[in-house]
Amino acid sequence: MTTSQELNKVEVCFAPCDFHQYEEGFDLIVVIDVLRATSAICTAIEYGVKGIIPVATIEEALEYKRKGYIVAAERNGAIVEGFDIGNSPYTYMKPELKGKTIALTTTNGTKAIRIAEQKKTVVIGSLNNLESLCKWLVIQDQNVLVLASGWKDKFNLEDTICGGAITDMLLQSGHFTSEEDSSVAAKFIYRSARENMFAYLKASSHRRRLRALDLNADVSYCLTPNNLTAIPILKDGILVPLENVAEKLEV
Amino acid sequence: MTTSQELNKVEVCFAPCDFHQYEEGFDLIVVIDVLRATSAICTAIEYGVKGIIPVATIEEALEYKRKGYIVAAERNGAIVEGFDIGNSPYTYMKPELKGKTIALTTTNGTKAIRIAEQKKTVVIGSLNNLESLCKWLVIQDQNVLVLASGWKDKFNLEDTICGGAITDMLLQSGHFTSEEDSSVAAKFIYRSARENMFAYLKASSHRRRLRALDLNADVSYCLTPNNLTAIPILKDGILVPLENVAEKLEV
Repeated sequence: MTTSQELNKVEVCFAPCDFHQYEEGFDLIVVIDVLRATSAICTAIEYGVKGIIPVATIEEALEYKRKGYIVAAERNGAIVEGFDIGNSPYTYMKPELKGKTIALTTTNGTKAIRIAEQKKTVVIGSLNNLESLCKWLVIQDQNVLVLASGWKDKFNLEDTICGGAITDMLLQSGHFTSEEDSSVAAKFIYRSARENMFAYLKASSHRRRLRALDLNADVSYCLTPNNLTAIPILKDGILVPLENVAEKLEV
Repeated sequence: MTTSQELNKVEVCFAPCDFHQYEEGFDLIVVIDVLRATSAICTAIEYGVKGIIPVATIEEALEYKRKGYIVAAERNGAIVEGFDIGNSPYTYMKPELKGKTIALTTTNGTKAIRIAEQKKTVVIGSLNNLESLCKWLVIQDQNVLVLASGWKDKFNLEDTICGGAITDMLLQSGHFTSEEDSSVAAKFIYRSARENMFAYLKASSHRRRLRALDLNADVSYCLTPNNLTAIPILKDGILVPLENVAEKLEV
């Protein structure tokens, strides 16, 4: 355990619109969008997808399609018309996607990634890669800001739970401290939710949305901690597996 | 219990900067700033202060001072130089303030009131007047938006607890429903905090700030539920006791 002067900060920002209030002093950003963009991205990288290009708009996605890329597009929980795949994590396990680079646009997650990309290091978090990510974050010896994608710039419960899980794990390492009330609240919410996240999220607006779309299997998958170890990292605008760029990080 | 079609909504907005995302469909706003502006305002009205004029800036406050008003000004937890009183609730119990109109500016609370004042009805909430306020809200038969003042436009824990308390009480009346994740989270946070709010807030940023200013007695007071029954309401830019304007409300 180091002294409080030497501790790094871990904080949670609830939505992209709040990012400017929290970002100062943070060069390392973890973007999360538990239902389902970042869970899908972690899955893709784990299952051998070469890279994911996060794009903010449908127009940009169409541009990539014209260039011959595989393009995934989701809005409001559903696959956008004219695209083959959305952001169901199961999609990204398919062997035919191995080694491919995919352009992806989603309602919230890819926008959050684009907002964070001005920073030195942007990695992708989810409950799926929680432990692996946190172990890596501890050895970076940097301040960590978790950027929740939220729902259309509003606070959401599932990303807050994941942000709280990351905060809790980093605080327990003894190398971090939290100062923001958002981080304290996220940790409290995670601790009351962790025994049964599926039930806890019953009241969440996005789970209601996905239930209506018959996506309960996806929700269960996204709420499964530590079934993946991949850590996607943004390099030159493309999310790639962390090991490929490890030599470029100050580890 | 009415059917879901007939239920009113109760939602919590975490900070003034988010107000535009939540306000649609709400004509009745409850502004809260538990530490300490709205707790002080409820106390003032309960103890016989005639009215509180919420002003956003120090410059406006000085203008009122020049006009001969009693003026209270707080920034970052302390009384502003050149003003006689701040926002300690105990200040507003003084007999010499009875029947007076006071201009008040605070770091967060009065700004939130000014943002809400475009709406038809703005009332002031706190833990102190919780039950009295909720009983009144139930009989209004309107959608209720709780606007937390936050800390400099960031989420804060104490206002979220109070917003969660109001949400919980209104939901239990059987006449309300909540759809936003922020409201669900506020209710969860209130429920885990309510047995010992003082301890729960130990980690909160503003409690740390007030502890440094030796204001623990104020914090204890502000976290005391239901020691007041007054409901301040905004009328022509002045917060006055609710009974004076009851005939103008659609009760």
